[in-house]
Amino acid sequence: MPELRKDPVTSRWVIVATEHPMHPADFNVEASPPRGGVCPFCPGNEAGTPPEIAAFGEDGRAPNGPGWWLRVVPSKSPALRIEEDASRGGRGIYDVMSGLGAHEVVIETPNHDTDLADMPDSQVEKVIWAYRDRMLDLRKDKRLLYALVFKNHGAAAGATQDHPHSQLIATPIVPKRVQEEIKGARQYYDYRERCIFCDILQQETKERDRLVCENASCISIVPFAGRFPFETWVLPKVHASDFTQIGKQEAIDLARGLKETLYRLKRTLNDPPYNFMLHSSPFQEPDEDVYHWHIEIIPKLTRTAGFEWGAGLYINETPPEMAAQALREPL
Amino acid sequence: MPELRKDPVTSRWVIVATEHPMHPADFNVEASPPRGGVCPFCPGNEAGTPPEIAAFGEDGRAPNGPGWWLRVVPSKSPALRIEEDASRGGRGIYDVMSGLGAHEVVIETPNHDTDLADMPDSQVEKVIWAYRDRMLDLRKDKRLLYALVFKNHGAAAGATQDHPHSQLIATPIVPKRVQEEIKGARQYYDYRERCIFCDILQQETKERDRLVCENASCISIVPFAGRFPFETWVLPKVHASDFTQIGKQEAIDLARGLKETLYRLKRTLNDPPYNFMLHSSPFQEPDEDVYHWHIEIIPKLTRTAGFEWGAGLYINETPPEMAAQALREPL
Repeated sequence: MPELRKDPVTSRWVIVATEHPMHPADFNVEASPPRGGVCPFCPGNEAGTPPEIAAFGEDGRAPNGPGWWLRVVPSKSPALRIEEDASRGGRGIYDVMSGLGAHEVVIETPNHDTDLADMPDSQVEKVIWAYRDRMLDLRKDKRLLYALVFKNHGAAAGATQDHPHSQLIATPIVPKRVQEEIKGARQYYDYRERCIFCDILQQETKERDRLVCENASCISIVPFAGRFPFETWVLPKVHASDFTQIGKQEAIDLARGLKETLYRLKRTLNDPPYNFMLHSSPFQEPDEDVYHWHIEIIPKLTRTAGFEWGAGLYINETPPEMAAQALREPL
Repeated sequence: MPELRKDPVTSRWVIVATEHPMHPADFNVEASPPRGGVCPFCPGNEAGTPPEIAAFGEDGRAPNGPGWWLRVVPSKSPALRIEEDASRGGRGIYDVMSGLGAHEVVIETPNHDTDLADMPDSQVEKVIWAYRDRMLDLRKDKRLLYALVFKNHGAAAGATQDHPHSQLIATPIVPKRVQEEIKGARQYYDYRERCIFCDILQQETKERDRLVCENASCISIVPFAGRFPFETWVLPKVHASDFTQIGKQEAIDLARGLKETLYRLKRTLNDPPYNFMLHSSPFQEPDEDVYHWHIEIIPKLTRTAGFEWGAGLYINETPPEMAAQALREPL
């Protein structure tokens, strides 16, 4: 069973996989994962995944059969498991926690070859609702403090399936990255009594040189100090810390805005591998005034090397203003 | 000229390259950098690098000619520049700093095909002394607060030259990762009045199941909560926060220990791409009792994907005890 271990120096938690550990011969970082054969995410192959947790589909459709528009299934190799008991303990100077959590896969479409950038808006909207529904369901388990929705597109971004999908991992801790954002947002709020993200939006809307696109509810920008070339954030215009409270029209606009942003990245960078991550407030601490949910998209264009790993200081070789200008070019 | 920008949410600094920015067509993450042609790091091709900053070589050797055993040269595409003035300023809600610093390359050997794992011990020792000498020289510039020594080996680890080399980037800030380590070490010290790294060494020496190898002065372990499979740390046995204070015998032992560790990784993982990073105390704040210098080696065996980027929470698919056991196998 998986185990969470805490680095005693930095207090960073790590998930240590113990069920199917990787041995030396299993690693081949540059090889793309084997493709071909039967896609377990395609219609007709529903038996290739664990039984579905949720699905959108035709009226009267039977679970785990065809007729679906979107499916949510448990991961076949889960990083964490819901069956685990929540227990903490020490091992000498070290701290451990049982690998409690959930790991789910959102199969975004029945269509094997159509990623989010090219789907109909209405299909992207279904994906947004699936994220919300799963987060609302998982937060009922009070042992879980967070759920991170993320997507890996392309082998270089860590995808092991070509079929469009995203994932969700729920954790018994608030992840370090989210904690850092909340801490910084709270410091700013304590000083200025304003949301830092709202102030970012105000400055970016005024200056417009890092703006990628916008619609009635959401805006896409290349962040002023992004880690990676062409990193792009999608944010709601109206302050909201908790993604699961999204309204109907906002979800429609988010679907349009996310799709347009991904399409612009695809066009400008020749369909790059990418990751995106949805940052919302922790389940049990909404931080309503302080935090502002958003989606961070990072195209995988460069290799992270020793300096970045050792310093936590990134070298971004494309000035954000230049990236935004390229992404803004008329469609 | 390069610019440092601070992310207003997390206070993370980013180096934004502005002199030779990368355009969309410049990115091709999966392609290995072009090889072949003239190696600028090989003897006879000294004119292919900027003029050397330091070198070890035969008596009476002229700079930038042959007869060297190790050379240190400025990077041809420096992340930061020593010529910059140290200035800080605001741009609306954002903070910027001029790109002051240094970026140097340590050409570890004249021999194009012999990496650290296979060099004579005495050559690895020269590399250790070069790191020390350059750090001692750079710290004289009081505007510089840190110098990170790191190595990228193999294209997947970010190396753009095959010839064995490491790098050093000096910065006008203490990098975030180092700050995090010092903060955690200080919290531990305040509570226990002991160095956390010394306590780690004590537990690992006793339990031995994460031990890789050791000699009189240094020890190599797979950290209890390492981020990556087969991550390995090399630490001095006697407490020391500042690497530049290393003694003669300790340097000899470190050379042996580092080489043996890299050799064990090479043998076990079939010459994997890897990074290593030398973490020493900041130039102006030695943190003598609290911090403990060390080298972190991370083989590049897996791809970092959306969950890790979004959560800062890593999934290590090889339990450290299993990795250490494989690395310990008799040579």
